[in-house]
Formats: sequence, C-alpha cells, structure tokens
Amino acid sequence: MTSPEREYVQSHLDDLHADLDAWLRIPSISADPAHAPDVAASAEWLAGALRRTGFPTVEIWPTPGAPAVFAEWPSADPGAPVALVYGHHDVQPVDPLELWERPPFEPTLVEGPDGPELHARGAIDDKGNVAFHLLGMRAHLAATGRDTPAVTVKLLVEGEEESGSPHFAGLLCERRDRLDCDVVVVSDTGMAAHDIPSTVTAMRGLADAEITLRGPAVDLHSGSFGGAVPNPLHAMARLLSALHDEQGRVTLPGFYDKVRPLSDRERELMGRVPFDEQAWLSGPAASRVATGETGFSTPERVGARPTAEVNGMWGGYAGPGHKTIIPAEAHAKLTFRLVADQRPEDVAAQVRAWVDAHLPEGIEAEVHAPPGGVAPAASDIDSPAMTALLRAIAQAFDAEPDAVLFTREGGSGPEADLQEQLGAPLVFLGGGLPTDRIHSPNERVLLPMLHRCAEATAHLWRELAGLSLRRGAS
Amino acid sequence: MTSPEREYVQSHLDDLHADLDAWLRIPSISADPAHAPDVAASAEWLAGALRRTGFPTVEIWPTPGAPAVFAEWPSADPGAPVALVYGHHDVQPVDPLELWERPPFEPTLVEGPDGPELHARGAIDDKGNVAFHLLGMRAHLAATGRDTPAVTVKLLVEGEEESGSPHFAGLLCERRDRLDCDVVVVSDTGMAAHDIPSTVTAMRGLADAEITLRGPAVDLHSGSFGGAVPNPLHAMARLLSALHDEQGRVTLPGFYDKVRPLSDRERELMGRVPFDEQAWLSGPAASRVATGETGFSTPERVGARPTAEVNGMWGGYAGPGHKTIIPAEAHAKLTFRLVADQRPEDVAAQVRAWVDAHLPEGIEAEVHAPPGGVAPAASDIDSPAMTALLRAIAQAFDAEPDAVLFTREGGSGPEADLQEQLGAPLVFLGGGLPTDRIHSPNERVLLPMLHRCAEATAHLWRELAGLSLRRGAS
Repeated sequence: MTSPEREYVQSHLDDLHADLDAWLRIPSISADPAHAPDVAASAEWLAGALRRTGFPTVEIWPTPGAPAVFAEWPSADPGAPVALVYGHHDVQPVDPLELWERPPFEPTLVEGPDGPELHARGAIDDKGNVAFHLLGMRAHLAATGRDTPAVTVKLLVEGEEESGSPHFAGLLCERRDRLDCDVVVVSDTGMAAHDIPSTVTAMRGLADAEITLRGPAVDLHSGSFGGAVPNPLHAMARLLSALHDEQGRVTLPGFYDKVRPLSDRERELMGRVPFDEQAWLSGPAASRVATGETGFSTPERVGARPTAEVNGMWGGYAGPGHKTIIPAEAHAKLTFRLVADQRPEDVAAQVRAWVDAHLPEGIEAEVHAPPGGVAPAASDIDSPAMTALLRAIAQAFDAEPDAVLFTREGGSGPEADLQEQLGAPLVFLGGGLPTDRIHSPNERVLLPMLHRCAEATAHLWRELAGLSLRRGAS
Repeated sequence: MTSPEREYVQSHLDDLHADLDAWLRIPSISADPAHAPDVAASAEWLAGALRRTGFPTVEIWPTPGAPAVFAEWPSADPGAPVALVYGHHDVQPVDPLELWERPPFEPTLVEGPDGPELHARGAIDDKGNVAFHLLGMRAHLAATGRDTPAVTVKLLVEGEEESGSPHFAGLLCERRDRLDCDVVVVSDTGMAAHDIPSTVTAMRGLADAEITLRGPAVDLHSGSFGGAVPNPLHAMARLLSALHDEQGRVTLPGFYDKVRPLSDRERELMGRVPFDEQAWLSGPAASRVATGETGFSTPERVGARPTAEVNGMWGGYAGPGHKTIIPAEAHAKLTFRLVADQRPEDVAAQVRAWVDAHLPEGIEAEVHAPPGGVAPAASDIDSPAMTALLRAIAQAFDAEPDAVLFTREGGSGPEADLQEQLGAPLVFLGGGLPTDRIHSPNERVLLPMLHRCAEATAHLWRELAGLSLRRGAS
C-alpha cells in the first residue's frame, strides 16, 4: 500500500545515499582529541545539509567539548505541537582497524541478503539515523503539499554521545527555552529485525565504579612472604566472585530496591518480539551460552533488568614469564546498568557498603565512583505520542499499528536528561538492527531500514499534528 | 674465645671490603640484556680474585646465557673430602631507582645500630656471600699453616640465578665430572638475626602457570549484552577465589599428596628461632596482618608449607574513565611454592584439573604451565656434613653447636639441581639477614655477618676434613 510519502522517498533514495556518503567520510571520532577538527567539520556538514533541506533556523552550538547542531522549522499552523529530534554526529573509534574489511571512512555499498548495505563507521550509529530525517522532512512537505511542517520540528544533534555526553546536560539546561517541546523523538536506536516493525520503549541507565584494594605497602617477594600475608589479588578475586549470587542477582545491598517490577503485560509485549537465541549467540553475542539472572529471558536480562559487569581488572605482573611477587595493589572497573526507577547516584554508596562487607582483614579498599552516571529512560506506551509513532511506523511497514512491537535497549544514553530537563515524553524511531555491528569493526546500515524510517518520520509529523500533545492542553 | 681463624679474619677485614667494593661497582644485572657485558666483567673480576687468593684452577665456563666461574683448590691430603661452594655473581635489577637512598652501584659504608653496613645492589645477594669465601680460604690456610686446604674446595658461581638459572641444570650435566663432590655448601642465604647463629635447612620449590579464560569471541558492548552472556572476568574472579579453601589450603587436587608432614621435632626446632611477628609485619612484610594456612605459624607457612599466589591478573579495560565492555579474555599468572617431596612437574596437571573443575559453562580455558620449575631442596639435619657446619658456625659465634638454630627459606633456587645431579648432600652457610632488603631498593649487608661467615668457612674446611663424608666410605 503506497503513499505519497513513500513515493517521494522511493524516488529520492539517491539523495539519502549522497548525503550519507559525504557525511560518513568525515571521521568525527569524539573520543580522540586529534579528531576534534573532524567533529567540528561533521557539525558544519550537518548544518549545511539542514539548510539545504530548508530548515530556516540552523545553528552550531559550542560546548566545552564538541559542538552540537540545532535546527528548527516552525509549523505555520497555530497551536501545532513541537517535536524535538535527538541524535548525534560523532562516531566511535575504529580500532582494531585491522579487523575492518573496508576502510571505515570510505563508505562502501554491499549487496546483502536483505538488501543494499552501506558499510562505514557511523553508518547507523548515528549518522544514518540522523540523515533519514533530512529525506523524511522533504517527503513530509512534498506529500502534504505544505510549505512548513505540520508540527514544529526541532533537531538537536550532539557531538559527544560516544564520549558519554559529558556536556549534554549542561547544554540542555543552558538552551532550555530553545528546546521547549511536546515530544522528544530519539533517533539513536533500532528495530528487532528488518522485517519486524518495532520501537524501543526503554534504555538502561549507567553507573560506574573503580575499586582499588591495597595489601602490603610494596610488592613483596612471594618466596619470602607467600602464604603468610594477604594478597590483594586474592582479595579482589573473592570480592568480585561475590558480585552475583547463585541466582545471578547483583549482591549490592539495596540494588533492587527501586527497580520497577516487570508487569505481566510488559513481559507479554516483550515476549511477542521474535528472538532466536541460537542465532543471537552465534551472531552478535559471539558467545557459547546465554546466562544471567534466574527467571528472566535473555531479552529481559538485557533490556529490562539491572546488571553489574566487571569491565576491567588488573594488578601485579602481566609481562612475559613470571615474576614472583605479592603485589601491593589490585584494581577493578565495574559498570552497572540500571532500569527504572533506579538512580545512578545511589550506586556509589551501595558499592562502598558491598566492598566493606567483603573485605578481608589486612586489605584496605578505595572506591572511586564518579558523580553523574546516566539515569534509565522509559517511554509511556499508552501516550498519544506513542499512538502517533505506532501509526507512522505501521504505515511505513504496511502493517497495523498493533503489529508494531516493543523492545528495550540495553545500552545507555542521555535520553533521560532530555526527558527530565525538558519535561517531555520520549519516543524512539531508529533504523538500526542487532546485526549492524555498532561500536565494532565493519559497522553497516541496511539502507531499506533508513528508507522505512524516512517514510515513517514523514508520516509521524502528520500523525502528531492531529493529536492533543500540547502540555497543558486538555 | 678467639681462634687463629678469627685473628686472621679480623686483621684482614680491609681485604674483604676492598674486594667487595670493586666487585659491587660492576652492575651485573642478568635480567637486562644491555648488562650482559657487565655480567661478563663480573665473572672476569671473580676469576681474578680467585686466582689472587691462590686457587690453582680458575675457569670461566660459558653457557648459552651468562658465564659461570669455576675454581678448584685440591687438598694435598689423600682421601680428603671434596666440598663444592655454590653462589652467583649476577644481581637483581635496581628499579625503582628513585627509591634508592644511594646509587646502587657505588657501595657506601653506613654505620648502623648493629655495626657497619655496606649498601649496594648485590651487597649480600650474592656477592657478599661469595666474597667471604675468599677471606675464609686465606684464613683457613693461615690458621692451619697449610699450603692446600684440608678438603678439596671447588666453587661454582653462576651468572643467571636472578634470571631463574635457565642454563644451570644443563651446565651441571655437562660439567658433572668436574663438579664431583661430597658436600655442597650453598652460600646464597642467611641467618635469623645478627645475634642468632643459624642455618637454613630447606628451600621451597617453584612451579608456575598462566591461565587464560575466553568468553565472547570479541569484546562486547556491556549495554547490549551485559547480564546475558558469560563475562570471563567474572569467571576468573570465581576461579581464583576458589584457589584456597576456608582453612587457607590450596585447592588443587592432589597438591598436598606428596608433602612430607612436619615432624614434631622439626616444628620444635623451627619454634626455637625467635620471631617477632609484629616487627616482621611492620618491617619486611609491610603488611597489616599475618594470615594463611590454619594450624601453622608464620615461619612454618613461609618456610615449611606449600603455597599458591596469584602474581598477576589482567583483562578488559584499565585506562582512564570507563569502557563499557565485556572483554573477550581474562588472564592470571600464578606461582606455587613447593616443599619436600612435591615435584614441580606434577603441578601443571593439577592446575588443569582444578581449572576444569571450576569453569563455568560458556568459558574456555587455556593453561600454560612451562616445563621445568624448581624442585624443593632440603638438608639432612643429622648428617655428618651438618655436624661439621654446626660446629663451624658455633665457633664463629662463640656458641655451642646445639645453639645453632635451623631455619627454612621460603624462596627457591637451583639448589635441588645440585643435590639431584651431583648426588651430594646440601648445607647452607650465608650471612644475609631478613632486614637486608634483597631484591629491593637499598639492599645492604651487615659486614660483621660476612666476617663471621668468613671465619665459619675457615673452620668448616677443617671440620669437614675430620669426617667420613666420602660417598661409598664406610
């Protein structure tokens, strides 16, 4: 079932490809200071593309770090709702470079089993997800015959998401008035599969901690002292082995206190999403078995339950051969993924209490838990904005709105800041797939997903206009 | 109670100081290939000093690594026993250099609470312990009025002890005929305190293993996969936390099977050695508490019981900030100290069985346990050679032979190779003290300890001559 929106998109695919090809050649790696000029060039490129699309207001907003791009196209309709699109124009580093089959910043078209793929760093995360909005806006205007969109559309595309968005909350606070909106459309996620229309309804939060254990004042000779004084590596192993209980639950005291239980309806909705665990294991998870908290499925473990992971551990001698020491120190880095309604600022005290409870005599501990972290974010699946989104996605996929499934994203981003600081509900529209290798070598995007999303966003601006979204509206 | 030996030593202290001062200026660090010429120069210096002392045979024996020095002074007495002195002329590296109060290769005399100290790398480990034999031999000849020693004295001073003696067993095998002897006098250890005459009766053996655990095929994003696939760092923590049971015993299957139990007499003899645990903790052990295997004292834990220590552990991210990964691999290096009659070659299979027993589903393990290792070595405290040694030490300390205490050395060296390949009993005569900071910055020797040892060795050659040591003698 075609539509004017789809017809426009399908006849302008080359525009999207040309945009992406140019943008993806800019190595806007925010984590690497050497690439700061590239991140700035990426912002400039996007600003130019937004102007060419017709946005009357396009600004580059500096931050103490990398610049963000802001654009606004007001609707001429009085009382039209305001939608704010969130995305980012920076990309992950590319190492290990030797594992890339093609140069990461020379976008290459590859014919895949599900359609044409574009391979490049940032192809989906997040330049592809931002770029479809350019085509989508043009399709919306062409299909509706309007000079201005049916809703006021704002875009905020930051340049530090892959570096933890260190200045994003400050930017939101500083520019709050300009960012006022009725709904936030997050375009930094994806769908369950190329043939499964779906939307993300939650992202996990994040807190981190570094633990240092100290034993002897200096590295000791293991022959002269081994077996008679505490070894911090032994203490660290015992501590970390107690991070999860036999049910795979995190043992930090109070860790689950604020976790909103999964309702039967939420579990039923998650369960509708087809999930091939063997394909997931042999594909993206690259693991032999699935494991985790007892009583929850793999999608629930990743999307809807809080977790604790040791991301790094080190101490003593790691060179060739052996060195017979009892090292003075042992170290570990941990991150915690949080779900609603956990708060990242609670985790530091929980980690400290947990370390104290597991510390053997003669070992001293230091816990460094930086303030901040990322709060979990969630959509209200019964909101008017969600109704509009489901209708828009359904049209792009030739499906009914109730065939659009709900997924949860295990990762974390600044979405909760948008929700909390702007006081607007979140919906998620993105074209990524679990097989897109984001953050890894050979990142790619399935181009038909971007075409569907461009069409969906064109529908979305029209659908949102018909709803009573305005805060304070009856 | 003076003796001709002591009179000679006391009137030739300057000779010992001059020898040591010259030798300690040569930075013979065997672990650093850049110092290979210095190790060679150190061998040359020692060969010259042995010739000046009067040894008729002095040879430098090349190895695939650093050269050893061999010397022999046959006794003119028919049927005189043969003693072989073992020591080494290489030294430990000096880093961290900034912690040295004086340049490590500019020997400095310091007046300490117990007498003059000489501060330099190698001052006691092991140049001091070898150098006293030069003065000791001259004292023996002068005191007895002999032209040749009362026993045939051989010296074998290797150049790779601080690098694990990789070519020592091969050298022993190759030069077996030249090294034939009735007793081996190891001079690479020390005594319990400056005023406690004692001898070491055992050294621990050593085996090492490196363990790699593998989970996902690549580092995974902890947001997308955290909580749902096995994390090798978690598996490593659980594995290593199971290395000891609640009684502090090593859990490797079969680890204790060949351990010779401590007899009541041995424990009583060890218990005679004064040990101030608080002074040990606040001094050399630099630790807050003593801990270890239940039912054993600290000296027993270090000297007479086998132990397992994790010397290094690493995996995942160790840089600034955090990196939200589940790493593909985790690593650990372990060493095991062994006591009679454990065999280092048994440990690899024990480690493999232990790892297999503790491996969670979805994690693969690789155990790298190099062949070799070091066997434990022990003296027979009731042998004729021990009787001679105790008499010699007692005379040097103005004590009775039964006042000479027995200690055990927790460290490991190639002594078992000497015992096994040459088929001769070991005795230990060395002047080190627990406070000498061997292997650490500010290594020193208490010079009166070397004077006592020089005198003791002069007595020893005389005492040994009177005993029936010859293998095969009735």
